[in-house]
Amino acid sequence: MQLKALQIAQLIKGTVDGDPNVLISAPSKIDETYPQTITFFANPKFEEHLYQTQAAAIIIPKDFEPKAPITATLIRVEDVYSAVAFLFDHFSRKAMPEMTISPQSVIHPDANIGKEIGVGHFSVIEKNATIGNQTAIGTNVYIGEGVKIGKNVLIYSGVKIYHSCEIGDNCIIHANAVIGSDGFGFAPQEDGTYKKIHQLGIVIVEDDVEIGANTTIDRGTMGPTVIKKGVKLDNLIQIAHNVEVGENTVIAAQSGIAGSAKLGKNIRIGGQVAIVGHISIADGTQFQGKTGVGSSITKENSAWWGIPAIPYMEYMRAYIKFKDLPNIESRLRLLEKKLEEANNNPEPKI
Amino acid sequence: MQLKALQIAQLIKGTVDGDPNVLISAPSKIDETYPQTITFFANPKFEEHLYQTQAAAIIIPKDFEPKAPITATLIRVEDVYSAVAFLFDHFSRKAMPEMTISPQSVIHPDANIGKEIGVGHFSVIEKNATIGNQTAIGTNVYIGEGVKIGKNVLIYSGVKIYHSCEIGDNCIIHANAVIGSDGFGFAPQEDGTYKKIHQLGIVIVEDDVEIGANTTIDRGTMGPTVIKKGVKLDNLIQIAHNVEVGENTVIAAQSGIAGSAKLGKNIRIGGQVAIVGHISIADGTQFQGKTGVGSSITKENSAWWGIPAIPYMEYMRAYIKFKDLPNIESRLRLLEKKLEEANNNPEPKI
Amino acid sequence: MQLKALQIAQLIKGTVDGDPNVLISAPSKIDETYPQTITFFANPKFEEHLYQTQAAAIIIPKDFEPKAPITATLIRVEDVYSAVAFLFDHFSRKAMPEMTISPQSVIHPDANIGKEIGVGHFSVIEKNATIGNQTAIGTNVYIGEGVKIGKNVLIYSGVKIYHSCEIGDNCIIHANAVIGSDGFGFAPQEDGTYKKIHQLGIVIVEDDVEIGANTTIDRGTMGPTVIKKGVKLDNLIQIAHNVEVGENTVIAAQSGIAGSAKLGKNIRIGGQVAIVGHISIADGTQFQGKTGVGSSITKENSAWWGIPAIPYMEYMRAYIKFKDLPNIESRLRLLEKKLEEANNNPEPKI
Repeated sequence: MQLKALQIAQLIKGTVDGDPNVLISAPSKIDETYPQTITFFANPKFEEHLYQTQAAAIIIPKDFEPKAPITATLIRVEDVYSAVAFLFDHFSRKAMPEMTISPQSVIHPDANIGKEIGVGHFSVIEKNATIGNQTAIGTNVYIGEGVKIGKNVLIYSGVKIYHSCEIGDNCIIHANAVIGSDGFGFAPQEDGTYKKIHQLGIVIVEDDVEIGANTTIDRGTMGPTVIKKGVKLDNLIQIAHNVEVGENTVIAAQSGIAGSAKLGKNIRIGGQVAIVGHISIADGTQFQGKTGVGSSITKENSAWWGIPAIPYMEYMRAYIKFKDLPNIESRLRLLEKKLEEANNNPEPKI
Repeated sequence: MQLKALQIAQLIKGTVDGDPNVLISAPSKIDETYPQTITFFANPKFEEHLYQTQAAAIIIPKDFEPKAPITATLIRVEDVYSAVAFLFDHFSRKAMPEMTISPQSVIHPDANIGKEIGVGHFSVIEKNATIGNQTAIGTNVYIGEGVKIGKNVLIYSGVKIYHSCEIGDNCIIHANAVIGSDGFGFAPQEDGTYKKIHQLGIVIVEDDVEIGANTTIDRGTMGPTVIKKGVKLDNLIQIAHNVEVGENTVIAAQSGIAGSAKLGKNIRIGGQVAIVGHISIADGTQFQGKTGVGSSITKENSAWWGIPAIPYMEYMRAYIKFKDLPNIESRLRLLEKKLEEANNNPEPKI
Repeated sequence: MQLKALQIAQLIKGTVDGDPNVLISAPSKIDETYPQTITFFANPKFEEHLYQTQAAAIIIPKDFEPKAPITATLIRVEDVYSAVAFLFDHFSRKAMPEMTISPQSVIHPDANIGKEIGVGHFSVIEKNATIGNQTAIGTNVYIGEGVKIGKNVLIYSGVKIYHSCEIGDNCIIHANAVIGSDGFGFAPQEDGTYKKIHQLGIVIVEDDVEIGANTTIDRGTMGPTVIKKGVKLDNLIQIAHNVEVGENTVIAAQSGIAGSAKLGKNIRIGGQVAIVGHISIADGTQFQGKTGVGSSITKENSAWWGIPAIPYMEYMRAYIKFKDLPNIESRLRLLEKKLEEANNNPEPKI
C-alpha cells in the first residue's frame, strides 16, 4: 500500500509543508530512516536526525521551526503521537488469519457463538460459553464453561480462560496469558501444612482492555477480580485474587498486585513494581519501576519510588546521599576525633 | 445449593448464636456482603462491618464479644480461617469438566493410564508416561516420555511437563506452567560464546503441592530439582535447576530461586523475592516481598528484608534513617561549620 | 550406555591418572556422588569431597595436586567446564520424540517445510512460513504467517511465534515462550484513555540463541526487536519492542528490558534486573541481580548494583553504612549534644 504525503496529511488532519506528492510505503524511526518511508519527530533530543533523514516525509509538531533545511516533506499536526497511532492503523496488517471456525476446534453445542467469529485450530470452547460478534480466537485457546466474551475481541494463541470469567468488548489478550486461575489462598493448619481455600469468585475484564503475553489474572476468592475499562497490562504481570484495577490504569511488564488491592484510575505503574495486598491507591498515582508499595496512597497524582515506596523526589534525594554514605561516615568520624582532641587538649589553638 | 445456618455450624463444628434456620446460598466478603450469604470475621479492623452487614450469617471467633447488636446469625468457631477453608469445599464447583478421555487427545499405547481419569482435547501423553487414578488433565497439555503423575492430580490447560519428571498425589498445576525445562547452564568458551551444558536431571514434585499459572520449574543439571510435600507456589515463579524447596514452604508470585539453592521447611517468601544459587535457607525463615537473598541463612524462624537481605527490623530501622539522609547530612555539615568557626575563633563565647 | 574412563578421556582430550577401565554410566555432582558415575571438580571449596567420593572417575584440572589419596580415577583436562559440557552431550537423551510430522498438526499448503523435520500433535504452521532442515517442533506450537525458522532448531511445546518473525539456526526455544507479541505502545488521549499504536515491526532471533520457558519477546513498533547470535535468555524474561541484545549476552530469569534499549555484547545480567527504555549498555557490563538500570552505561566491562544502578563496589560500601545508619545518626546526635553543651558551658574542662 502506497500513499501520497497529501493523502496522509488528510487522514491525520495535518498541513503539508513541501512536496505533497511524495510516495510513502511504510513508517520508519527518526533515528533509522529509509527512503519512501514516513517518520515522526516529537522528542527534541532527536532533532539532529531531521536534517539528515532519508525519509520521504516527517510528521512534526504544528509550530516547530527547523534550524536548518529539511529535504523531506513535513506534515504539521497538533499532536504527533496521536497522529502516529492513527496512521499505524492504516499500515497495520491483520495479526490473525481470516475469520473462520476451524473444523479442528471443539465448540460445545451449548456454547453461544456470535456472527463472523474466528476460532483457530485445536481450541476449545466449553458449555454455556458466550462469544460476541467479530471476535477472533487463535489456536490452542481454552474458553472455560460459562465464560462470557464480548464483541470484537482478539484472543491470541494459547490463552486459557477458566470457567465463568467475563471479558468485555474490544479487548486484546496476548498469547499464553491465563485468566481465572485460582487465587493463592491457603489456611495454615496446626501441623504446619496448608489447607486450600477454594476460590469461588471470577475475573471481570471490562471493555477496551489489553492484556500482555504470559500475564496471569487470578479469580476472586469470593466475588470478582476486576480489570476496569481501558486498562493496559503489559507482559508477565501478576494480578492476584480480588484485585481491582481502575479505568485507564497502565501497568508495565513483570509488575505484581497482591490480593484485594484496589487501584484507582489513570495510575501509571513501571516495570517490576510490587503492590502489597489489601491497600488502596489513589487516582493518577505514578510508581517508578521496581517500587515496592507497602501501604495505601491517598493523595492523587503523586509519584513514588523505593522499597517501601516514599515520594519520588524524596527517594532521589536520599539515594544521592546513600551513595555518599562512606564519605559521610568518614566526615562524622573526623568530627568525633576533633572533638575528642579538643576535649583532651582544651587549650585554644594559636 | 442452599444450607441452613445450623447445617453449616455442624459442618464446621461451631455453635449457633441467633436464628439457626436462616438460609445460605453463597459466601461473601465481610466488607461486601449480600443477602442470603455467609461471611466471616477474623481481622479486628473489619469489626465495624459486623454491625451493618447484609449477610445472613457470620463465622466468628468463639470468644468474640460484639460491641453493638448484630442482626446476622453468628456461628462461633475455634479457628475462623480453617472453618472458612472447610466451608469453601462445600460451595466449590468443579473447575474441570467431567472426567472423560477426549478422542481428540493422543495417548501413546505404551502409556500407563489409571482409572477414572480425564484427558482434555488436544492433549498429548507420551510413551511410558504414568497417570494415577482420578487424575484430571486439561486441554492442550503435554506429558512427556516417562513422566510419572500420581493420583487425584489436577493439571490445567496448557501445562507442559518435559520427559522423565515426577508429580506426586493430590497436586494442582495451573494453566501454562512448565515443568522440567532445561536448567540455565552454559560453559563459557574462549571466544566469548557459550556451550550448552546438557541438562540430564529431572524435576520431582512431591504430594500435595500446588503450582501457579505460568510458573517454571527447571530440571536438574544432574540429579533432581525437588519440590517437597505440601509446598505452595504462586504464579510466574522461577525455580532453577537442582533447587530444593522444603516441606510446606510457601512462595508468593514472581519470586525466583537460583540454581542449587536449598530451602528448608515452612519458609514464607513474599512476592518478587530473589534467592541466589548455591546457598541454604533455614526452616521457618520469612522474606518480605522484593528481598534479594545473597547468602545462606542458618538461624531458624528469622525475618529478612533488603537487597541484600538483612534482618527485617534492622532494615526497617535503617530505611527510616535513609529517608532522612538529606537532613542528616545537613546536620553534619552544620556541625562541621560550627567546629570550623570554633577553631578559627577559639575565644570562648560569652 | 556405559563407557570406560579411558574412552571418556579420549572424548574430552584428557589424560588418565588411575584405572582406565572403570565403567561409567552417568554423571553425578561432586557433593552427591554415586558408584559408577563420573563427577567433576573445579571449585576449590568442594575439595574435601574429592577424598570421600563414591564416583568411579573425576574430571579434574590438569595441574591439580591432591592433598590426600583419591580412590577414583582422575581424568586431567585443561578446562573442566568445557570438558563437562562436551561430555554431557554424550550422556544426553533426546528431549523431543522422534522426528515425524504428526497427521494431527495443521501445516498450510503454502508453508515451506525443510527435510527431516518434526512437527508435534496439535501444532499449526501458517501460510508462507519457512521451517529449516532438521528442525523439531513440539506439540501445541503456533508458527504464524510468514515466520522464518532456520535449521536444527528445537521448539518446545506451547511456544507461540507471531507472524513475520525470524528465528536463526541452532536455536532452542523452551515451552510456552511467546515471540512477536505486540509491543506495549499506546498514545494517551485527552479524555484519559489510550489509543493502541499498532506494532508493525518483527522479532529477529539470530543463530545459536536459547530462550527460556514462558519468556516473552515483543515485536518492534517499527523495525525489528533483535536478539543477536549466541544470546542466552533464561525463563520468564521480558524483552520489549525494538530492544537489541548483543552477541553472547546472557540474561538470568525474570529480568526485563524496556523498549528500544540497546545492549552490547558479552553482557551478564543477573535475575530480576530491570533496564529502562531508550538507553544503551556497553559491552561486557555486569549487573548484579535485582539491579534497576536507569541510564546508559558507556564504560565497558564494569559491574553495577542498586536501584538505580551505581558501580557494584560503591553500592556494597554504601550498603554497609546503610545498615549502620541508626548508629551513625546516634553518633551525630551525640556530637550535636556535646557541641551544644560546650557552647553553653564554654569553660575548658580541667
